[in-house]
Amino acid sequence: MEVKSRYVTIKHHINGAPKQSDFEVQTVTLSLSLDPGSNDVLVKNLYVSIDPYQLNRMKDYSASQMASKYALAVLPGQAINSYGVGRVVASANPSYIKDDLIVGLIGWEEYTLVRGEDAIMIRKLDTTEFPLSYHVSTLGLSGLTAYGGFFNVCKPKKGETVFVSAASGSVGNIVGQYAKLLGCYVVGCAGTKQKVDLLTDKLGFDAAFNYKETTDLKSTVKRYFPDGIDMYFDNVGGEMLEAAVENMNMFGRVAVCGVISEYTDAKRRAGPNMLDVVYKRITIQGFLAADYMNDFLDFISKTSDHIRNGRMHVIEDISHSLESIPLAFEGLFAGDNIGKKIVQIADI
Amino acid sequence: MEVKSRYVTIKHHINGAPKQSDFEVQTVTLSLSLDPGSNDVLVKNLYVSIDPYQLNRMKDYSASQMASKYALAVLPGQAINSYGVGRVVASANPSYIKDDLIVGLIGWEEYTLVRGEDAIMIRKLDTTEFPLSYHVSTLGLSGLTAYGGFFNVCKPKKGETVFVSAASGSVGNIVGQYAKLLGCYVVGCAGTKQKVDLLTDKLGFDAAFNYKETTDLKSTVKRYFPDGIDMYFDNVGGEMLEAAVENMNMFGRVAVCGVISEYTDAKRRAGPNMLDVVYKRITIQGFLAADYMNDFLDFISKTSDHIRNGRMHVIEDISHSLESIPLAFEGLFAGDNIGKKIVQIADI
Repeated sequence: MEVKSRYVTIKHHINGAPKQSDFEVQTVTLSLSLDPGSNDVLVKNLYVSIDPYQLNRMKDYSASQMASKYALAVLPGQAINSYGVGRVVASANPSYIKDDLIVGLIGWEEYTLVRGEDAIMIRKLDTTEFPLSYHVSTLGLSGLTAYGGFFNVCKPKKGETVFVSAASGSVGNIVGQYAKLLGCYVVGCAGTKQKVDLLTDKLGFDAAFNYKETTDLKSTVKRYFPDGIDMYFDNVGGEMLEAAVENMNMFGRVAVCGVISEYTDAKRRAGPNMLDVVYKRITIQGFLAADYMNDFLDFISKTSDHIRNGRMHVIEDISHSLESIPLAFEGLFAGDNIGKKIVQIADI
Repeated sequence: MEVKSRYVTIKHHINGAPKQSDFEVQTVTLSLSLDPGSNDVLVKNLYVSIDPYQLNRMKDYSASQMASKYALAVLPGQAINSYGVGRVVASANPSYIKDDLIVGLIGWEEYTLVRGEDAIMIRKLDTTEFPLSYHVSTLGLSGLTAYGGFFNVCKPKKGETVFVSAASGSVGNIVGQYAKLLGCYVVGCAGTKQKVDLLTDKLGFDAAFNYKETTDLKSTVKRYFPDGIDMYFDNVGGEMLEAAVENMNMFGRVAVCGVISEYTDAKRRAGPNMLDVVYKRITIQGFLAADYMNDFLDFISKTSDHIRNGRMHVIEDISHSLESIPLAFEGLFAGDNIGKKIVQIADI
């Protein structure tokens, strides 16, 4: 027994903003008969995550972008792995049986053969309390990124002030909601009126602004933080980081989650004023969700409870069909998505 | 009874590199009769510290250099306070009697009237085991800066790699020596052959290089750190910070002590690549010696012991006379000093 699995791949390395035409769909044939003892699991993919950082993996490895060394590179013609939710269709792994739901590292493809040695990258999804997509967004790596970065890197205290950039994005919207639940003053920025309204009207941010409508970022940030910024959750880098640092308080903390302003353009950007960093004893710290896997159970438990009790909203932007992945990915860099961008590949 | 006290002051705010001609000497008359109950102490100054950060205090307060807000501004005509060692000549403070030696906040002047409310900024020097100047250099704030920044901000472990910029300077030379004593691999950079030789031949650095002789800082740093940098003690900022971050290892730490490349020139400099900061989970943290006053006794005790037993060298560059202060200060920004720059104003 075999299945044909279509998958999305890059035609060539991508430098600059990605376009749909940089991608193509290829097909591979997978056997449903798995080697006994291999611990392999064959998964039919249902929902997959679409993330900006993937672009760093698609750049030319030999180019100067050192960061590609730190994220596993994607080569033309190869499948592209990503976080997602799927259903087991065949298993040679005693931990899984047919029709189990799993969450973890699958791919932009119809089926993923999870090799025995990679089985630690997936786990059984033992609840159907929430829509499955939630395990890709607020209860997935986006949520863990927000949780680890906000609580471990920012080290927030009740009453402190928080600035979040790309605040309606997959991670930013969750950071802002955690911060409000803790009792912080939270301001977010985003790139459209619709996004800004979402932040204040639905998610309870104290204020939000459209950064595209300001000509002087530093004074705009200052206006929203008359008493200064204690924490800045940075998803964009560049001028926004510079403006945040200029407005930070003593012993301010910057959690550097992403640098989307530089993903599509490697030329030099504004940097923080290091004199401010010294005199204000600012800490700027980069992190990845993987650093906080030990917090995963704690994160899932608390966040599920917040969602269950209506204290947190899950903001998702779901497209449908494998073929829509390139457009969804292109759209990330144009600011098309509101909340977590997910593609549903198949029904359960 | 009165004394005439000459003091150094700025003629006007300074923007750019300081020149001797920006300064002048003025005279004030001080009474030797202190108000009983005032807790005032009149100090004859012996050794005073000459530090680059003072320049930030001399800039035009209304200019865009925000950092001036964080260091007490110096106004034209005013005395300029600084760390130093002096001898009490009159005291209305029960903690001090005539001829006590003190160390702490005095000034670029022959005599300092330490007001009762500022008496916490000085302390009695109860040892003459070491030359008095040592209490301005390795046993003074430069030493505490090195100690606090290296042990608290860098959080070093034996066997890790350390890069120090301005490594023959007042703080850098001490950081490198602490790092060697801990068992780290240490490389410093400096601006002359004489300084580079001092680092390797006398201070035991594993290697050192003259940054003025390299055209490609990033590859030079890479050559000295084939296994990457775990900690960067940054005294200069700009291109050096950028080169260090590019060569840092996972979970690398940057202690931002100074930004001398920007003190004399506020135009935008190279910044660290924030993509590296994210993927390598780098922490960049600013600090001031004042943050580590709680470690002072521990610092003094350990560092005195290192000096006593010949495990650390004290590197000082001492000029003589109040009038030499402006030249000494100008020289800091031309890289004239080797080790801690101190001016001896009077004999004991």
